[in-house]
Amino acid sequence: MYPQRANLPEALANRREKLSKLVDFPVILWSGSPLSRNFRANVYPFRASSHFLYFAGWGLENAAICLEAGKLELFIDAPLPSSTLWHGETPTPSAIAETIGADAVYPLSELSSKAAGAATIPVQDISTYQQQCDILGRFLPPADKLQGIDLVLAEAIVKLRSHHDAAALAEIKQAANCSIEAHLAGIRASRTSTTEAEVRAAMERVILAQQMTCAYNSIVTTHGEILHSDRYHHSLQPGDLLLADVGAENSMGWASDITRTFPVSGKFSPTQREIYQIVLAAHDDCIAKIRPGVEYRDLHLLAGEVITQGLVDLGILKGKVANLLARDAHALFFPHGVGHLLGLDVHDMEDLGDLVGYQAGRTRSDRFGLCYLRLDRPLETGMVVTIEPGLYQVPAILNDPDKRAKYQDAVNWERLAQFSDVRGIRIEDDVLVTNIGAEVLTAKLPTTIEAMEGNG
Amino acid sequence: MYPQRANLPEALANRREKLSKLVDFPVILWSGSPLSRNFRANVYPFRASSHFLYFAGWGLENAAICLEAGKLELFIDAPLPSSTLWHGETPTPSAIAETIGADAVYPLSELSSKAAGAATIPVQDISTYQQQCDILGRFLPPADKLQGIDLVLAEAIVKLRSHHDAAALAEIKQAANCSIEAHLAGIRASRTSTTEAEVRAAMERVILAQQMTCAYNSIVTTHGEILHSDRYHHSLQPGDLLLADVGAENSMGWASDITRTFPVSGKFSPTQREIYQIVLAAHDDCIAKIRPGVEYRDLHLLAGEVITQGLVDLGILKGKVANLLARDAHALFFPHGVGHLLGLDVHDMEDLGDLVGYQAGRTRSDRFGLCYLRLDRPLETGMVVTIEPGLYQVPAILNDPDKRAKYQDAVNWERLAQFSDVRGIRIEDDVLVTNIGAEVLTAKLPTTIEAMEGNG
Repeated sequence: MYPQRANLPEALANRREKLSKLVDFPVILWSGSPLSRNFRANVYPFRASSHFLYFAGWGLENAAICLEAGKLELFIDAPLPSSTLWHGETPTPSAIAETIGADAVYPLSELSSKAAGAATIPVQDISTYQQQCDILGRFLPPADKLQGIDLVLAEAIVKLRSHHDAAALAEIKQAANCSIEAHLAGIRASRTSTTEAEVRAAMERVILAQQMTCAYNSIVTTHGEILHSDRYHHSLQPGDLLLADVGAENSMGWASDITRTFPVSGKFSPTQREIYQIVLAAHDDCIAKIRPGVEYRDLHLLAGEVITQGLVDLGILKGKVANLLARDAHALFFPHGVGHLLGLDVHDMEDLGDLVGYQAGRTRSDRFGLCYLRLDRPLETGMVVTIEPGLYQVPAILNDPDKRAKYQDAVNWERLAQFSDVRGIRIEDDVLVTNIGAEVLTAKLPTTIEAMEGNG
Repeated sequence: MYPQRANLPEALANRREKLSKLVDFPVILWSGSPLSRNFRANVYPFRASSHFLYFAGWGLENAAICLEAGKLELFIDAPLPSSTLWHGETPTPSAIAETIGADAVYPLSELSSKAAGAATIPVQDISTYQQQCDILGRFLPPADKLQGIDLVLAEAIVKLRSHHDAAALAEIKQAANCSIEAHLAGIRASRTSTTEAEVRAAMERVILAQQMTCAYNSIVTTHGEILHSDRYHHSLQPGDLLLADVGAENSMGWASDITRTFPVSGKFSPTQREIYQIVLAAHDDCIAKIRPGVEYRDLHLLAGEVITQGLVDLGILKGKVANLLARDAHALFFPHGVGHLLGLDVHDMEDLGDLVGYQAGRTRSDRFGLCYLRLDRPLETGMVVTIEPGLYQVPAILNDPDKRAKYQDAVNWERLAQFSDVRGIRIEDDVLVTNIGAEVLTAKLPTTIEAMEGNG
């Protein structure tokens, strides 16, 4: 029940100290409240707001913290006596305050006394959002359209949360290690499973067994070309590749995010092997380039280049690589960004919009090959990013009459048809930017052909 | 993706036909919209409103149906072309309409044309709730405080949903069968697991593998006395009993609800065995009494009586059974109701409040032994109820000074102390009321001592 972390108060104090150097107004962050599923008492598993978690270190329900000049004040009500029957003994407010190193603790009704001049970030659940507006006495726009002191706060939080401290890295590594085990279980389970659902179940079992949860809805599909497939109903056929994009979130709320693609039969076909090698080369080349100062956008373009070169070598794309890239021909097969920031959120701080991923002065491109890029900043020490190139045959793209016309000369459609047993391949790892380069936090999970065939 | 049900349109038409005999105004039911977890795109798995599911038969997101005089009109927008990249090809509105047997299908923007004089049931998610108020042009109270035509509609829906048709029963049985397998897996896993979390994971794996979800947050705990424990962090010790209250919800949204309690070592202690036999006797005696016309409240009282007699026989309670029952002494150890209705919701229609469980003219008792009773109606053919007596040592009750004083003479506290290795035992099955008595839908999962020790 209590977060089992030795230096939690120190880590949180350190974050508050850094925040106090960036903002000179009080900050109130709300944790949020549980959301009901089909009736009020049947709630979804609660997940506190990530901004609250970052500074409070504990996923408390219906709580708020006030941060000012390095001080932490906690606002939470004592559990009702009647709740003991249903939920057992739960920690008292003062025990919680001590655990997280709060300077003081008050009932929630006291929160309004802190509202004057305070900034906040709006949470996702509407009832808490309405509470935020009520207590602050002003309308709050959505979290990706903040203004005034809220925007200043958001910018400060982006600065802090983009660079992970040692406490945060330990959490991310714990989550990543669990995800690695889940993927190994998934590869094993795929050999004997008859449906996608069975493989997903074997993977999520590992996550649940370690008292973690999924950081996002798992993608476990033989139709890797459906980028965010959230159904698991297809049966596994001997020639299928299975794409598994599954990541654990640990008990402190920190995420991991791994994708592997492997043959359910334990053996790639020659065509699958060719495409897999291209994606793997893009993945490896991007990771090899990671170091402080490198533009993440350049990694994305590098992935596009490796993929384009690979497809030219296979005879699927025709022409010069540079020309094909300039025309975004690679995006026919790689229609998403090469990755994103990772932290408490799997797309870290995505609630704040492109303020997070796009350096001041930069905006999203509307180019086919760049519009889905979630991160366009120079890499800095302490960032954790995913690297996740992929190669897909998406019918909605490849059968689109406009695209067919535009890229008629660039694609050898007959040659492409020979690769019909490759619907989608993605390989994704979580990478810490270090002073000297990169540390792949998910490196213990192999990516090689041999490993994906179960012989690694 | 499509519901694979042969006679879905007929089953739904039958439900509409029955509804049309109970209400003479149009009815609009909303499905609801997905709820975000930590950022907008990271949503909890969507669950449509149960009232919508009952008449629409498909858990569509952001949809509504209008029911009038037996007709079904569907309101849903076509998927955006850009959604194909992320979610693949999804069914068109007209394909959905055909699958569920809708008479017509319109975009959501047309829904306001149906609003005049229409009744509804408010959904759980606030953004859809606000849409409901906007479109109907009136304030909607919470679903358990309805008035006017909305209350008439709620009463009609309670009539329909309390008596399951053949289509509904087939769904509940499918969910129940999956839960049975999950519990068998849990009993097996407990022998080799070191934590509650591992057993929970083994059980939920079975549910996920069958493309189902949990109907509620699983309770898997060595602290059965925490009635709604939702944490899984305790390690399993050789002398522990593990209480597992886990139920699958099938792909059509229908629930099941099973509890078993078993020794993690595979062997009950003599004291655990004594208490288990009492709970099992209460469970069996209640089920044996089930037939149309029997008051559910009398089953609850019967469970209390069997438990009281058992505790008197063990020397834990002192005095005459009738006197002890009159004083609610049994509620010291059995502080909840004996069960509830089961259907699309695990506590079926609980969103509508005591309108569901309490016959007109009856209200909740404030007696210690009755206040948690969720159902106080005569049983009728077609109802599905749970029977779930339990026996617990809840510190918050047994150490409460008022209770200790009140029941000082009724309890042999020294004798009770000999049973300290029994923190909580519950045995729960799902039972259909039939013309001639009862059908235990979860009967394939044994309840005997031998089975719980793994020798059944």
